[in-house]
Amino acid sequence: MSRKLKVAAAQVGTIHANSDRAETLQRLITLLKTAASQGAQLVVFPETTFTTFFPRYVLSPTELDKYFEKGDDITQSENVKQFFDTAQSLHIDVCIGYAELTSTGDPYNTCVYYSATQGKVISKYRKIHLPGTSEPFDDPTAINQLEKKYFKPGNLGFNAFRAPGLVPAALKKDTTEPNTAGKGDPIVGMMICNDRRWPESWRAYGLQGVELVLCGYNTPNFAPDLYGEPDMDVQAAEREAYFHHKLVLEYNSYANSCYSISAARAGLDDGKYGLIGGSSIVDPNGHTIAEAAGTGDEVVVAEIDLGVCRYGKETMFDFGRHRRIETYGMISSQTGVIEPPLL
Amino acid sequence: MSRKLKVAAAQVGTIHANSDRAETLQRLITLLKTAASQGAQLVVFPETTFTTFFPRYVLSPTELDKYFEKGDDITQSENVKQFFDTAQSLHIDVCIGYAELTSTGDPYNTCVYYSATQGKVISKYRKIHLPGTSEPFDDPTAINQLEKKYFKPGNLGFNAFRAPGLVPAALKKDTTEPNTAGKGDPIVGMMICNDRRWPESWRAYGLQGVELVLCGYNTPNFAPDLYGEPDMDVQAAEREAYFHHKLVLEYNSYANSCYSISAARAGLDDGKYGLIGGSSIVDPNGHTIAEAAGTGDEVVVAEIDLGVCRYGKETMFDFGRHRRIETYGMISSQTGVIEPPLL
Repeated sequence: MSRKLKVAAAQVGTIHANSDRAETLQRLITLLKTAASQGAQLVVFPETTFTTFFPRYVLSPTELDKYFEKGDDITQSENVKQFFDTAQSLHIDVCIGYAELTSTGDPYNTCVYYSATQGKVISKYRKIHLPGTSEPFDDPTAINQLEKKYFKPGNLGFNAFRAPGLVPAALKKDTTEPNTAGKGDPIVGMMICNDRRWPESWRAYGLQGVELVLCGYNTPNFAPDLYGEPDMDVQAAEREAYFHHKLVLEYNSYANSCYSISAARAGLDDGKYGLIGGSSIVDPNGHTIAEAAGTGDEVVVAEIDLGVCRYGKETMFDFGRHRRIETYGMISSQTGVIEPPLL
Repeated sequence: MSRKLKVAAAQVGTIHANSDRAETLQRLITLLKTAASQGAQLVVFPETTFTTFFPRYVLSPTELDKYFEKGDDITQSENVKQFFDTAQSLHIDVCIGYAELTSTGDPYNTCVYYSATQGKVISKYRKIHLPGTSEPFDDPTAINQLEKKYFKPGNLGFNAFRAPGLVPAALKKDTTEPNTAGKGDPIVGMMICNDRRWPESWRAYGLQGVELVLCGYNTPNFAPDLYGEPDMDVQAAEREAYFHHKLVLEYNSYANSCYSISAARAGLDDGKYGLIGGSSIVDPNGHTIAEAAGTGDEVVVAEIDLGVCRYGKETMFDFGRHRRIETYGMISSQTGVIEPPLL
């Protein structure tokens, strides 16, 4: 039976440090309406969507405060309530990232899954792989990446969940069939930006049978891993950043036989901080099936069939048949590198 | 200081079930000489290099026997001794795969690293991720993949090692420097064919600071994960198999900041079993820097600088700084998929 659905990535172009928050919110609502008008049932927004990507700035506690949404239920935040109300009225599911300050004062780089069917947030993810450094670089010309300073590492793990209301009710619980694999509501996993570069994030979801990985990101338009060349050609550096972005999504979607939807904050913030676009939808064979054309506000839509996930999960990547966990101990017991001794 | 070396992949074209073993051996020796003449210090050969890829056949124990090398030291096997003697006389290191029957009668899909400097095998790897099925398919037209029937899963784990004699002696042990990361003899890890599709194989080596992953393979020229379409276009299927091969090498080399060298058994065995070529050398940023042009016997050579591995290992993929093992437990404790309950 068909498990088709229509999904979208909402790419968000330039947001400056001094962009008006209400104006930004209207742009997001316009993207939501555009996605809904194209028949999308689920739309993925970027990381820290409601403001510019502030971890690039060195900020005082007071300056920092304005970038965070307070409290435990983002849908009730006055700043952004209209966004979720619109999703509800359009009956469209949303995954969206924001800077979260919990009721106990803990800061996280967070995203939520808002279910229109349920009328509430049904899953929350807090970014686990915070990149960058805990303190600003000594070099005043370097662009900082202070997520380790401004956020705590996510404490919710990688918890896949079922998203209700996206596939026909007839495909829900079939009590006559003991093997429920590949049935029922879509199995969804969320990650944020740098998480997507780490195979561990994907495998944790893959082991839960994930069919759809959702990932918002802010990715600078130069690859810092470009041999560390200070005189790097700007366009080559941007191609390199795109290359790695695409590589990590295509490989990990393939190796876990799942679709992935990624949504960029893109453009040129403050007239000087460039971010790649490349919002995309990738299939379980690792092919990019839809991709943003530019770096502005843009909706990317594709119809997908979750049934396509099954083939890989039952053959090449049938984990139960092929994985050899007796050789994987190091992966979860050892954080850093231990080299073989010098000869 | 420079840690440059010249490495090669020796791609081996068609070998039929009835190919003469002595003739095949001479082809391998020719490849070895060609690599040496181009200045290669290390050359990687395919999986089960000395014969055709026999796990595609349903074989009796007697028929099976002739494909295996007996005993624990491959270099002393009369069938292949000349190959290692040639490597010794050319002073070239070799990684080569073969079907191993140990002195205790256990069958493995194995490869060894032969060090010309040491004049012996200094590391052995036994394939961990055996693909395919334990018994033949019911469909007599299907091509079998009986590695699970003919081999035991590798029991040596993923053990990285240092390969001596490849970089200048001046770069060896520096007792004045407590941090030896990125110094000394190259850190090498070996894997075989299907292992390369699994991020766990690469990460196990990455956690040992691997700089050079060596991988021989036999990969059919159609991707079984192509949506399971029985009427798949032949050329599209071959492109798909190449696409996945390239994707897994490029991503995992990037995500572990290492070079990789992969060597194919390629061509059209028995006039009907097609295998992809695509033997290649990939750099730590995920770029293929050298690649076989065809599907016949061919040597692919590149000069590499192990110093290039450092940048990624110290920034984006600085495991000690960024990995969050408290969220990875499932990866080494749970073999198969456990889906979230149906709603």
